[in-house]
Parts: sequence; structure tokens; C-alpha cells
Amino acid sequence: MTQFINTKEALVTEAIDGFLRTSGAHLARLDGFPHIKVIVREDWDKSKVALVSGGGSGHEPAHVGYVGAGMLTAAVCGDVFASPSVDAVLAGILAVSGTAGCLLIVKNYTGDRLNFGLAAERARAYGIKVSMVIVDDDIALPDLPQARGVAGTLFVHKIAGALATSGADLETVTEAAQQVIAKVASIGMSLDTCTVPGSPKEMRIQEGKAELGLGIHGESGVELVDFTTARDAMAIVLERLKPNVGDGTKVALLNNLGGATPLEMSVLAEELSKSDVIDNIHYLIGPAPLMTSLDMRGFSVSILPVSPEGLALLQTPVSLRSWPGCIDIEAPRIRPIPDGLTPIKPIPSKDPAMAQFIARCCDVFIAAEVELNALDTHSGDGDTGATLAGASRALKASIDRLPLADPTQLYRAIGLELSQTMGGSSGVLLAIFFSAVGDALSSGMPMVDALKAGLLRVREVGGAEPGDRTMIDALTPALDALPNGVTHAAKAARQGADYTAEIVKAKAGRASYISKERLRGYNDPGAEAVALLFENMSITS
Amino acid sequence: MTQFINTKEALVTEAIDGFLRTSGAHLARLDGFPHIKVIVREDWDKSKVALVSGGGSGHEPAHVGYVGAGMLTAAVCGDVFASPSVDAVLAGILAVSGTAGCLLIVKNYTGDRLNFGLAAERARAYGIKVSMVIVDDDIALPDLPQARGVAGTLFVHKIAGALATSGADLETVTEAAQQVIAKVASIGMSLDTCTVPGSPKEMRIQEGKAELGLGIHGESGVELVDFTTARDAMAIVLERLKPNVGDGTKVALLNNLGGATPLEMSVLAEELSKSDVIDNIHYLIGPAPLMTSLDMRGFSVSILPVSPEGLALLQTPVSLRSWPGCIDIEAPRIRPIPDGLTPIKPIPSKDPAMAQFIARCCDVFIAAEVELNALDTHSGDGDTGATLAGASRALKASIDRLPLADPTQLYRAIGLELSQTMGGSSGVLLAIFFSAVGDALSSGMPMVDALKAGLLRVREVGGAEPGDRTMIDALTPALDALPNGVTHAAKAARQGADYTAEIVKAKAGRASYISKERLRGYNDPGAEAVALLFENMSITS
Repeated sequence: MTQFINTKEALVTEAIDGFLRTSGAHLARLDGFPHIKVIVREDWDKSKVALVSGGGSGHEPAHVGYVGAGMLTAAVCGDVFASPSVDAVLAGILAVSGTAGCLLIVKNYTGDRLNFGLAAERARAYGIKVSMVIVDDDIALPDLPQARGVAGTLFVHKIAGALATSGADLETVTEAAQQVIAKVASIGMSLDTCTVPGSPKEMRIQEGKAELGLGIHGESGVELVDFTTARDAMAIVLERLKPNVGDGTKVALLNNLGGATPLEMSVLAEELSKSDVIDNIHYLIGPAPLMTSLDMRGFSVSILPVSPEGLALLQTPVSLRSWPGCIDIEAPRIRPIPDGLTPIKPIPSKDPAMAQFIARCCDVFIAAEVELNALDTHSGDGDTGATLAGASRALKASIDRLPLADPTQLYRAIGLELSQTMGGSSGVLLAIFFSAVGDALSSGMPMVDALKAGLLRVREVGGAEPGDRTMIDALTPALDALPNGVTHAAKAARQGADYTAEIVKAKAGRASYISKERLRGYNDPGAEAVALLFENMSITS
Repeated sequence: MTQFINTKEALVTEAIDGFLRTSGAHLARLDGFPHIKVIVREDWDKSKVALVSGGGSGHEPAHVGYVGAGMLTAAVCGDVFASPSVDAVLAGILAVSGTAGCLLIVKNYTGDRLNFGLAAERARAYGIKVSMVIVDDDIALPDLPQARGVAGTLFVHKIAGALATSGADLETVTEAAQQVIAKVASIGMSLDTCTVPGSPKEMRIQEGKAELGLGIHGESGVELVDFTTARDAMAIVLERLKPNVGDGTKVALLNNLGGATPLEMSVLAEELSKSDVIDNIHYLIGPAPLMTSLDMRGFSVSILPVSPEGLALLQTPVSLRSWPGCIDIEAPRIRPIPDGLTPIKPIPSKDPAMAQFIARCCDVFIAAEVELNALDTHSGDGDTGATLAGASRALKASIDRLPLADPTQLYRAIGLELSQTMGGSSGVLLAIFFSAVGDALSSGMPMVDALKAGLLRVREVGGAEPGDRTMIDALTPALDALPNGVTHAAKAARQGADYTAEIVKAKAGRASYISKERLRGYNDPGAEAVALLFENMSITS
């Protein structure tokens, strides 16, 4: 498997330009490619505290996706999983910082600490007020005081962003960021490694195993655990987080590390919502890709205990597409099934002539079972005759229950009966035909027009046209000729059915997959059935 | 590789409940699990035309993610890649349809056509106005009139949704949907197959190849092409689309089939934006996962020529997280690099005593090169001595260029010099130290306090604490003792440095990865360097 990139070297700069072209937001980049990859807000007047974050790329939407009103002012991007340079960070600081100063939000990796740290010193030499916070929310390695910074960083972006937007000063914003960092805890789990562009994929995790406590740069997890179900996976993650989170109301952040499908993330969200391992998780950010590790099929959970003020800052609306909001977790709302799924049982009524007519039609198909099966072996699985004969026997058996004296209801009832006994595509199509005929009759349409309306509906739903080697090739000319009498209709049906033997490329239905050699000379069994029916009617009428 | 699910059977129902719990939207589901999986708007008053779509699951966010104001009224979900039943579709129609009626938006797959089609008939029997459109935007199989419905369906959802919201009647909404379907064309390309839950992954596409014209249910592409770059991939896709799209202004929809990373999708967006294969593509929806095929590493492009009215309907804002908006493609905005990246060259000034002092300090490190290298072999890569000696030689050579008579500028200049000549983490840390000392001095702080401020900054950025077996273990006691004289400082530094030989678990820096047996009895080379410096100063002072 390769990747949709041009070159590894140009990956990040091209991705940034692609992002900027298609973000529809007030964003710009600094003119420093390829060395300086900095995205800044264009709608920024420097009267408020600027927030600058960044780090290696490969964590998208972090951090470019969080630059905008209410969150970051600038993002400084390194190459994939590589820290940006001091110059790049300094350029970002200088581009957005005014008299209110600048907060650097840095994830706890040596390269980021040093490059952001030195850039901060150089910016201070210009008289810019710069403070820096180091996010270390990963609890995977309890013995290491230098815990990594992972998805919990998003809480810092959002809370500091809301405060800065409200006009808070640098000290206030920095202090709030520090408080979030002191309280937030995160851990991740993955079923597969990520694919670093330009490097072969490391097949490290065997089937049935999961890595727990992994980093976001392809680092191995601290532990290999058995993977059984999403429920157990979420329980393991929450058990690890539990001793690391404080009391009170909590917000969970459910992060897709990149490669889990939305279905999986929704199942994990369901398990997180239902779990009682950690109490008082009432709010959720996600599930969404928030701080990814390229295409890693994994997730992480971050937990932050919040005060009402902190919650309000997290819930302040922002218009960034990458930010999923912080919502109240609630039980799924469930509405009753509407009435009407149980079909209305028609009131039986008597009409001996109609009963006889229906029985006669059914007998045509019952008699033709072997012949139609034989034709179907050339284009299908040889069961057209059996299917039609079976449905005909069932319909005959139900005649006494049908509303024979009420044409409108009768056709709908036949359609319903066929859809329940026949099965498969042909059953549904005949049910649609008879239902549509009944609808047309109930609207006052004459019989021939009603039958044509039914045929039109079948063509719409089934997608078959005349010439596609289906029953339509017999039914269409038959109905066209029917006003001139059944004999004319039967002749037209026969011509139409025989013509299907010359159609060597079926365009719809199962026969469309069959080679032309096998089709030539054999009538389509559906069209033949129609012809047989009309022929029988013309003889007996 | 396994997946974050509990059971294949419960996957879709659990995912729907997880989605509902965490969507924060006005959504409910019908009480028909597991058979009937229907999501409906709760804030729906049936006075407007209802839009019902759906189909198999595995295409998330389609279709559940598009239920909401301005788009769908209900989504009817089948199991993964399986059509929902007639009863499920009928339940959806009955739940949301009022007198204005209901439009069914169906992708062109036999199962969906039949099940939605028969449900429509049954709903009509209740007197509900139902129309149905079949989306067939896939141009991969030009000979098959029954083209598949893929991501172009999104155009129908959005345009029909905006019209229905505006109060248009069923005929108008249906006609508009038909017009979109007649004009939209889509094709996809993938580098890998998708992983169907419960089924082994089919490794079908070799390295260096891509499938072109694939479906969204794991069907093979119509063609296996060479994959070289994202640029070529986009060109191939656009060349195939070109003959299938009309004239005029066009909107492109760039869909992530599930497994491509945001970086890749941004690169593809860049290539789409820059391409001149199809002219007049001025608007873009995406890149985003819009109509996915589980975790398939692929993308699709859909193109729709639009009138100004159609564009306005596409651009009507909706608050659905799954809908990325329809934005004007524009060139990346580029801002100049801010002034200040080129460090200010300090104005040289003379101070013979200071020059002599600096040279003496440098000589200490130059003389200790071999000794410090030897210590470093126990905890690092044996280059501490060489690094310090090299930087010292460079600093000595630059003495005449330094602002020796201006203490504030001098320390900053030394920091800059070290950061440029020394490289690596220790160079950055010393640069941060001297820059911070300079800042502190410029704010009027006494020298010892300024040195302590520098040390504090190094600790913040480097993340090391006393006791972590770093130079801090010598520098901290030395600075604490310095007010009592250099001799006391030297003694304290020596004690601190020697104490590092007893610290067998380094907690920061490279030595943190070394086993305790290798560390015991050897001073940390950084701490030893500090001790040597202070000892030398105490002798010569």
C-alpha cells in the first residue's frame, strides 16, 4: 500500500496549501516554505493574547485545524513527527503577538520544549510578553515525570482560546492553561501501527492484541493487552485513567487516532457513555479525529474534571470544523414505531368470475413451471418457474381471503400476498406492480392505463428498459395492444417474448452478467411467462 | 488486526445509539431495534417535504450524519453493506411524512431500489405522497446503464434539503433532485481494500497499484492502474470525469473513502485545486469523509455543474457536523515573514576584564574535553567534552565581536553564539539559560538572581528537577551559595556534582534510558563541567 502523496519532502507544505485553499476560513501562511511552516489567523488584531501551538505534523486536524476564532492564533508545523525549528516558532510568535503577549502551548517532547523554549527567549529579547505551558497529559508511563503531551492538549486550546477571546490577560490565560494541564489525564489504545510516509509499515501488533498506552508518533505502547471487544477495551482504558482523575463533574474527550471507522468510534462512544468505571462523566468532546497519529487504528480517552466556569469555556461555540463541540451525554431518544407497518388486512368479498380469472392465471404459471425453469438455466439459476409456480399456488390458496369485489383493494392485496410469499427481487417487483395498479385504479384510472402505470413504476424501481431482456419486453407491447383486444395483446406479448431470444446483451437483472453465447436463442423466462399468460387469456376469453 | 466492535450483529445498533448519545442534535430513533434502524429528526413538524434516505451501513457519516435541519429528515440504516428492509423504510416514511409528502433518495443498488420502492408503494396505500429518485452518479462502468450511486448523492441531499426547508413542494423538490442526478458524475480510486467487520481483509491491490472506479461496498475497481503520485492520481480521476460533466461553473466534492489521512486528503485537494483538466471548478465540498467505504484508503471526486440558484442551495448554511460546507476555492493567502528572525547583531564593545574572564571559562572546558567525554561514555554517547570544548573554542574566537561592555546584551549574545555553534539539546538549553539571564539583567535584577532566573527557565523548558542527574544538580547549590563567595559556590558545586554519582536512576535527558549499574560511581558530565568551572573560578579569583 502506498499513500496519496507526491514526495515525502513536499508532503507537509503541499498539505498546508491544500488545506488553506479549501478551508474557507480567514487563514494565511507565512512566506517561509519549506523551512517555516506557520499558519496564522488573518482576522487577528493583536489586541488580545495570542495562542501559538504546533509541533510535528501527522496529527491532523491538530494543529492547523484549530487555528481560528476562539482557539489558536497560529500553528507552527514541523515535518511529519518532527519538531519545527526555533526560527519557525519565532516567526509564528512575531507574526501574531501584540502588546497583550503570547501563550505557547507545547506538548511535552524534548524537541518541542527546546525549540519553542528558545524561540520564546528570542521573542522576549524583542520585548514580547511570552509564556509557555507544557502539556503532559499521558498517564501511560507513571514512572516517568516527563509524561508525553497527547490529545488532552485540546482542552488547553479550547479553554485558553475562549479566555483569550474574552479579553483575559496573559497571566490569566496562562494560569488557566496550567490548571487544565494539572488536571487532565489521557491514555490511548490501538489495534494497529501507523504508516509513516516513506517508511515501511511496522507490523507490530498481532491479531487479537492491542497496544495500551501508546504515543502519537508510532512509539510502542507500554503494554500489549488482549483485545476482545470494544466494551472491554473501553473498560481497560477507563480503569487506567481512574486513579489519575479528580472528583466532580468530568468532560471526556474521545479521540480517533486516525484509522478507526466512524462505526467503531460510535460503538466506543456508546461504551464510554454506558460505563460506570469513572463516575460523573457528563460531557463529551467527540468522537472525532482530534489529535491523530496518521492512520493509526486506535483511540484515546482524555478526562478533565471541570468547574462550571471551565465547562462554559469548553462549550463556548466556535465555528472551526475540526472542533466537534462539547455536548451533554444523554440517553438515545426513542420514538414508537409508527402505525401502519402491519398491513391492513383487506375485508374478503366475493366475485366468482374474478376468483375464476385469478385461479386461471395462476394455473398458467403452475403448468409452465418446468418450461420456465429450463429457460432460466440459460440466464439465471433455473428457478423462475418454481418461484412463479410457488407464488401462484399460494395465491390460489388465498383467493377466499381476497377482496375480490373491490378492484382497488384487490390489486394491493395481491401485491401484498406476492411480496410475502414470493421473496427475492421478482416478488418485490410484482408487489410493486400490483400495488401501483391498485393505486392507479383507486384514483379512477381505467384498467389498461392502471396496468401501464404499474409497469412504469416497475421500470422506475427496477431500472429496466425495453430491450433489456426482461419481462418488460413482453408486457410493454401487450399493454399497448390491449385496447384492441386480448388476442392482439397476446400476439404482441409473444412477439416481444420471442424477440428477447435475439437480445444477446442483457442490461439489467442477473442475466446482465451472462455471456452472450449462452443467451442467444432462448427467451427471457419472465417475458415468456407474460406471453404464456396473455396467450392463455386470449384462448379462454 | 481486529476492530473496535463488540459483535458483528450488534455493530450498527450500538453505533447508532452511540451516535445519538453523543451527537448533541435533535435526533431520535424508532423503537424497532434490531430489525428497524431508523433515525429521525425530533424537531420536525411535517409541514414540509420530508427527505428520507439510507441504505447499508459502513458509509458513515452517510446517512445518519446528514439527518438534521437543512438536509435529511430520516435515515434508514441496513446492516453493513446490506439494504434495509421494506418495513424499516416504511417505518421511516410513516414517521416523518405529513401532508407535504416525502422524497426518497435512493442509491442505485438493486436491494435499495426494491426495498425503498415497495415501501413507497405501501406508504402510498396510506395516502402519503411519496416520490423516489435513484442516484446513479458513478461513471466507472460506462457500458452499464444501471450506474451505481456513490458520493454524488450528497449533492442531492443538500440541494433537496435546502429546497424542502424553504417550503418547496414535493414536485419541485423531486424535480430538482432529478436535475442534480442527471448532471452529477463521480469516480473513485483506492490504494487498499476495506476491512468488512467479521470478514478477513482481502489483500487485493499490490504495492504501486491503485484501483480506479471502485464501488463503496468493497467491489473491485474496473481497472487496476499504476500509482505514482497524488498528482497523477488526481489527473487520472479528472480525465475520466471530464467527458461526463457539462459546461459552466462546477462544484467538486472531494470524498475520503475512509482510510486516507487528512494530510493525504489535503494534498489531493491541492492537486484538485491546481489541476486544469476540468475547467471552471470554482467550489469545493470537502475534503472530508462524506460517503465512505469503511476504512478504505481511497478518495472519490464528484463534479456537479451548477446554476447560481443551485450554488446558493449548496451554500445555504447547515449546522450538521458531517457537512463541510461548499467553499470558494482560493489561492493560499501568504504573508511576509515578520522582521526579527535574523538576530540583531550586537554592537561590539571592549571590556578587557570581561574578555579575560570569558576566555578563562572557555579554557576550563577546553582542558576538560577528554575527562568529560570519558564520563559521558557511562551515560551518553561520549561527546559532552567535545561539544563543550568545541563551543568554547568558537566562543573564544568570537570574543572581539561581543558587546563585552553591555552585560544585558552580552549574555544574550553568548546565548545566540552557543545556539548557533553548539547544536543539539545542550546548545539550546545553554542558549535559553544565557538569554534568560540577559533578560533578567535588563529588567534590573542583580547578577545572582539573574543567574537563578536563567536556571529556572532551563528547568522549565528542559523539564529536569534537582536529583534528576543533570548539570542542575551542581548549578543549583552553586548559585544558592554564590552570595557567600565563589569559594563556597565551588564547594557546593563539587558536592552537587559528586552526588550525581550516587543517583542511579536518571529521570531526564538521555541518561534516563540507561541501566543503574552503568551509572553508579560516575558523575554526570554536565554537573562535573559546572563543578570544574566554579572550582577554576575560585582558584583564580
